[in-house]
Amino acid sequence: MTAAGPLEIGARAGSARAGVLRLPHGEVRTPAFIPLASTATVKTLDASEVEALGYDMVLGNTFHLFLQPGADVIARLGGLHEFMGWRRPIITDSGGFQVFSMGHGSVADEIKRRRGDRESRILSIDEEGVRFRSYVDGSERFMGPETSMEVQAKLGSDVALAFDECTPFHSTRDYTARSMERTHRWLDRCLSWSAAHAPEGQLLFGIVQGGVYEDLRREAAGRVAASGADGVAVGGSLGQEKAQMREVVGWSLEGAPDDKPRHLLGIGDVDDLLAGVAMGIDAFDCATPTRLARHGTALVADPDQRWRLDLQKSAHAESRDPIAADCPCPACRDHTRGYLHYLARIGELTAARLITLHNLTFTAALMHGVRESILSGTFEAYSRGILEGGSPYQPHA
Amino acid sequence: MTAAGPLEIGARAGSARAGVLRLPHGEVRTPAFIPLASTATVKTLDASEVEALGYDMVLGNTFHLFLQPGADVIARLGGLHEFMGWRRPIITDSGGFQVFSMGHGSVADEIKRRRGDRESRILSIDEEGVRFRSYVDGSERFMGPETSMEVQAKLGSDVALAFDECTPFHSTRDYTARSMERTHRWLDRCLSWSAAHAPEGQLLFGIVQGGVYEDLRREAAGRVAASGADGVAVGGSLGQEKAQMREVVGWSLEGAPDDKPRHLLGIGDVDDLLAGVAMGIDAFDCATPTRLARHGTALVADPDQRWRLDLQKSAHAESRDPIAADCPCPACRDHTRGYLHYLARIGELTAARLITLHNLTFTAALMHGVRESILSGTFEAYSRGILEGGSPYQPHA
Repeated sequence: MTAAGPLEIGARAGSARAGVLRLPHGEVRTPAFIPLASTATVKTLDASEVEALGYDMVLGNTFHLFLQPGADVIARLGGLHEFMGWRRPIITDSGGFQVFSMGHGSVADEIKRRRGDRESRILSIDEEGVRFRSYVDGSERFMGPETSMEVQAKLGSDVALAFDECTPFHSTRDYTARSMERTHRWLDRCLSWSAAHAPEGQLLFGIVQGGVYEDLRREAAGRVAASGADGVAVGGSLGQEKAQMREVVGWSLEGAPDDKPRHLLGIGDVDDLLAGVAMGIDAFDCATPTRLARHGTALVADPDQRWRLDLQKSAHAESRDPIAADCPCPACRDHTRGYLHYLARIGELTAARLITLHNLTFTAALMHGVRESILSGTFEAYSRGILEGGSPYQPHA
Repeated sequence: MTAAGPLEIGARAGSARAGVLRLPHGEVRTPAFIPLASTATVKTLDASEVEALGYDMVLGNTFHLFLQPGADVIARLGGLHEFMGWRRPIITDSGGFQVFSMGHGSVADEIKRRRGDRESRILSIDEEGVRFRSYVDGSERFMGPETSMEVQAKLGSDVALAFDECTPFHSTRDYTARSMERTHRWLDRCLSWSAAHAPEGQLLFGIVQGGVYEDLRREAAGRVAASGADGVAVGGSLGQEKAQMREVVGWSLEGAPDDKPRHLLGIGDVDDLLAGVAMGIDAFDCATPTRLARHGTALVADPDQRWRLDLQKSAHAESRDPIAADCPCPACRDHTRGYLHYLARIGELTAARLITLHNLTFTAALMHGVRESILSGTFEAYSRGILEGGSPYQPHA
């Protein structure tokens, strides 16, 4: 159980692994769920609260922070950790997903202020990178592999992601193949930049793209594995159904170095987390728990409803039950579904906050159970129990 | 220092008094600032957090809760205390201010969803009460003295306020006089209803109106004092300038029974709180600390800026200072002005929450200092110190 690199694997269950990822700002217990702090905050929460919930790492968004307040401002304020008051590890995405989404159109909710003119935001895409208009002030901006790495260096994240193009589901095989090739060339440029300029200890993960095409995914997996990147991130469209998603993730991990961390981007449904862990994923980031919360939906142990409870439904208006009787979060400890229904329906910020606390408590409990069960050799039973509607909350000792 | 009624006055400093108001759900240390929980939540905070900040009482809004979720729903869910998870005292306003504001137009921000058709919302005003259209669903609703009392009974507040018309500053003397007379007739109806139907221990305060007219204020003060109401609330337009406001409050308190609590409605600026206390006010409610927070403005010990620090100003963009170095709140303990500036500028909920925590910490510290200084015989010096820019935070022992 020794570790050559930053990842120490403490136990395995089939392909699943549990361990510790050692980073400049501390240790991340894996498998880990990583809440989004896209705009330097896990929305509605203070950094100290995220830590108290049991999370070791958050994800900062290079694209949003590049535009506002700008990497230089954050650097002058001491880097992203200091800026947001979070002293534990941070992973930053590369900005590629958001930049390309402006053209591909799948990130509408993130740039909703000017949804109408989304089409005009990308000015050009070429080998160098992407020229686009800022959603903040309409100014012309540029981001390429070196820009992304430089921003991530200024932010001072523990883990940087290589700049990539995230192709949408409807892309042709031909477009996906050419895009993937460019993503690999960009990975090489990111690795070069990082070797010369990255802050001490900052890891760089390559991203496996290739859409839903088996041969492309296998090729990308091999290229990232061979690149010397510090870890493997699986990105892009993973298909429309869960079965296809798992197939795509499987191809994307083929040949991934066993001793390096593996990150699955943008996946956070309960069954997907369990499936990802079973396939050997060490970390996940996803907007789902926090975004659902802001729309009044709580995570509950109910597989038939995809683990979702829509508190805005009229059925909850006069319910005196908590979201979950065994959940230790403030929403469940002190409040009824009826109250949360009312707050969510009138759009009260208190609802967004309480349900965010609940959803992150639920997800933290789930991941704690995942880790503990791998370490104790009971992962398969734990996973089966959750998939059959078992509660993720640990009975108090 | 005995108490015939629920108010026990423990010490005095001129007209100022410090003591304890004993209510069905607990004790309120006076002089007290009462945060608004208009929609059954102190916006962005959980009830347990409001208690932890040192507040003994919150104010619920009869008008908003009457329309949504409705008094019957709240009653079936156990009353307002149980509904919102706040087990300490609650005062409810009567709804009069909001109902009449729909016509007078001074509550635009509270019904902003349909700002444009505000004029058409009041259908009729007569001796019985007010007929209006709900801002929630456009349905026709009615509120009069008995309706207001019945709603407040169903909410189960510790202190109810009599239904009144709050005349705006531009009202003529003639209109103000006739309105005041009706408010007094409504007070008698509220007292009758309360005597027959109010929940055990619920107090009923009368409201002194009369605009900025000395004779009307004096007359109203006498009528409320003689009415047998459990306390005196000063409402309505208090004038445009602080000097006038203090004059109006003075007239409104003339003849107020010494042993009954006095509440000043809707006033919360630092200098006004100190002036109100000096005139013998026991409790204040106001949107200012929480509303300012949601607009990015923090309360600070700076009389020249009316105790306001607009964090959205560019000057704070790269500041590494906290809002106040000696403030124990999470915003000040963990974060810089630069970070809060950024969060407020992009409209992050986290900013609203952190600054709300700060502003309520500031106000709680101020009121704690007010009470302690009255009890220790140093109120005048304390007040002078604050007015000269002194910090309200107590040095740690």
